[in-house]
Amino acid sequence: MYVGVVVGSVVATTKEDDLVGKKLLIVQKVHPSKGTAVDNRMEVAVDNVGAGTGEHVLVTTGGAARNVFGSSVSVIDAAIVAIVDSMEVNEQGSEA
Amino acid sequence: MYVGVVVGSVVATTKEDDLVGKKLLIVQKVHPSKGTAVDNRMEVAVDNVGAGTGEHVLVTTGGAARNVFGSSVSVIDAAIVAIVDSMEVNEQGSEA
Amino acid sequence: MYVGVVVGSVVATTKEDDLVGKKLLIVQKVHPSKGTAVDNRMEVAVDNVGAGTGEHVLVTTGGAARNVFGSSVSVIDAAIVAIVDSMEVNEQGSEA
Amino acid sequence: MYVGVVVGSVVATTKEDDLVGKKLLIVQKVHPSKGTAVDNRMEVAVDNVGAGTGEHVLVTTGGAARNVFGSSVSVIDAAIVAIVDSMEVNEQGSEA
Amino acid sequence: MYVGVVVGSVVATTKEDDLVGKKLLIVQKVHPSKGTAVDNRMEVAVDNVGAGTGEHVLVTTGGAARNVFGSSVSVIDAAIVAIVDSMEVNEQGSEA
Repeated sequence: MYVGVVVGSVVATTKEDDLVGKKLLIVQKVHPSKGTAVDNRMEVAVDNVGAGTGEHVLVTTGGAARNVFGSSVSVIDAAIVAIVDSMEVNEQGSEA
Repeated sequence: MYVGVVVGSVVATTKEDDLVGKKLLIVQKVHPSKGTAVDNRMEVAVDNVGAGTGEHVLVTTGGAARNVFGSSVSVIDAAIVAIVDSMEVNEQGSEA
Repeated sequence: MYVGVVVGSVVATTKEDDLVGKKLLIVQKVHPSKGTAVDNRMEVAVDNVGAGTGEHVLVTTGGAARNVFGSSVSVIDAAIVAIVDSMEVNEQGSEA
Repeated sequence: MYVGVVVGSVVATTKEDDLVGKKLLIVQKVHPSKGTAVDNRMEVAVDNVGAGTGEHVLVTTGGAARNVFGSSVSVIDAAIVAIVDSMEVNEQGSEA
Repeated sequence: MYVGVVVGSVVATTKEDDLVGKKLLIVQKVHPSKGTAVDNRMEVAVDNVGAGTGEHVLVTTGGAARNVFGSSVSVIDAAIVAIVDSMEVNEQGSEA
């Protein structure tokens, strides 16, 4: 999983049935301690915990994301699985 | 999933049966708010929603892409699952 | 999937049974329009369409590659699924 | 798998049931011989071997991580599978 | 799959049962023709063909790696599947 910040959303009328009724949120990966963006890649993850713009979230990908929606035939490859309350990072550890 | 722009297509006569009759579109990953290309990597995704060149699309990958074509024995690892109408990105959020 | 050029091959006597009799080709990822190498990472993909050195091919990865050989217990994670006849890339689209 | 150092943890009240009771540890990938951080990407992995901050660990990802918790319907995509006692790296080998 | 050089090994007492008795080798990805390291990322792969330090090997990842050990419930995400005898790379092809 990775930590990201919800920075927006995608609206799409023409889409797979599996995506109908799902919130498509744009998530920017961030460095857990510095809070800065990690490379400029943003992903679209389907929300399942009620996350909103500006919130720090945990994103899971691949088969794990499909499982979030309880269906191994899902077309979703990234899902938000938690809203982060707090993170503790031991900088000395991170300079290892 | 990631947001990309359809920039072209691939024609291949010699190919796996599973690809016959499928539109092989070249997709450039883009930054959702800046619209700029994200690293110069382009992927080939199979279209399933009628996307055309120049359109912003949502691409899913891995097992999720196989599921788009309803077959766990598919040889497809990337599929277009939506045509993007609009995206809203909160720049302040993205500078987090 | 991604577009690559076959640039060579690997010979290995000591290998998994699943690889016996399979062509192990070295593929360089290329930018579909510029034809230039995309980062200096080369992958080894198992050929299934009769591709040769210098040819542009389409490579699929992960579970999709295992499916190319019709066996979910395959040890192959990258497979060549098409020989590219031509590619059309709309440069304006790619500068999006 | 990759070698990393546990540098912290994530606390999240709102989360998928599958994550309840699980330790969400922040792991920085490190170069096995130099010990330095490998690109500034930190991942969140679920601990299953009792790892603590500052310890070198082995992280597995994807379906392998789901299997660590014995459930193919898990939403976990990264798991800590070992605490590293020691590593031996032949620098000459690594300059190959 | 990718070509790498075995540069060392990991010793871990506290680990998942699935890893007990398995050789955890540190592999540096290398450029097949130049032999130079490809980005400074080293992975840990489980050996299944008797590879030793300094040898060029072929590494498979994801579900394919789990299959090497014949168990879809394995916690292994990277496995060594061949010892490379020789590689032939057509430099002209690689400058494509």
